[in-house]
Amino acid sequence: MKEKMSYEEFLVKVKEGIVDDKGNCPVTPVMLMLQGKWKNQVLYELCVYEKVRFGQLKKDLLGITNTMLTSTLRELEADGLIVREQFNEIPPHVEYSFTQKGRDLYPLFYAMMNWGFEYSNKD
Amino acid sequence: MKEKMSYEEFLVKVKEGIVDDKGNCPVTPVMLMLQGKWKNQVLYELCVYEKVRFGQLKKDLLGITNTMLTSTLRELEADGLIVREQFNEIPPHVEYSFTQKGRDLYPLFYAMMNWGFEYSNKD
Repeated sequence: MKEKMSYEEFLVKVKEGIVDDKGNCPVTPVMLMLQGKWKNQVLYELCVYEKVRFGQLKKDLLGITNTMLTSTLRELEADGLIVREQFNEIPPHVEYSFTQKGRDLYPLFYAMMNWGFEYSNKD
Repeated sequence: MKEKMSYEEFLVKVKEGIVDDKGNCPVTPVMLMLQGKWKNQVLYELCVYEKVRFGQLKKDLLGITNTMLTSTLRELEADGLIVREQFNEIPPHVEYSFTQKGRDLYPLFYAMMNWGFEYSNKD
């Protein structure tokens, strides 16, 4: 793990091309991980709720099917961003919440929000 | 335009759901804008070069076709992130560079890079 680069350092180094230990761009896998029709909206829900049930997500995300919601949640789980907890109560239910790795995306959402407020409504 | 929220304020407010003037999530359109197989790599190239020619992008992005590169560039241009300049010299050529709106994505790339360095190589 490299020492954290300051934003000023980043602006200089980006001209040379910033690569990880394997010689790859460290931004590309993050962008690819976040792609998908519903992923951003599910992540948004997880920001709002501490823990959220499948049924609540289904209710909030208008137009999402069970299959789409399940596959989106599975991808987020496979990437280690969220954790799925099963409660074998009556009625049984499942809750989803961020892992630390997922919560560490917050600075990224914050940067996106700032850009969105600055530009999204303008054009 | 709202006043810029601090990161600490953001962490509190995100639980209530942060919305723009139209009642929408300000992060979603930004995420959607950045989606696409080649978009992240073209943006990376634009970070590295001050101005870059179509031919240079074609050379650097292994496996991209002219059609894919053209449509990616057109989408970035339509979103106001890059500007296309045509030089009617001999031989004629075209150069692409970031607009201010595009350059203002840098804090976002910086946040992604930090996350990428922290997590991408770990699993």
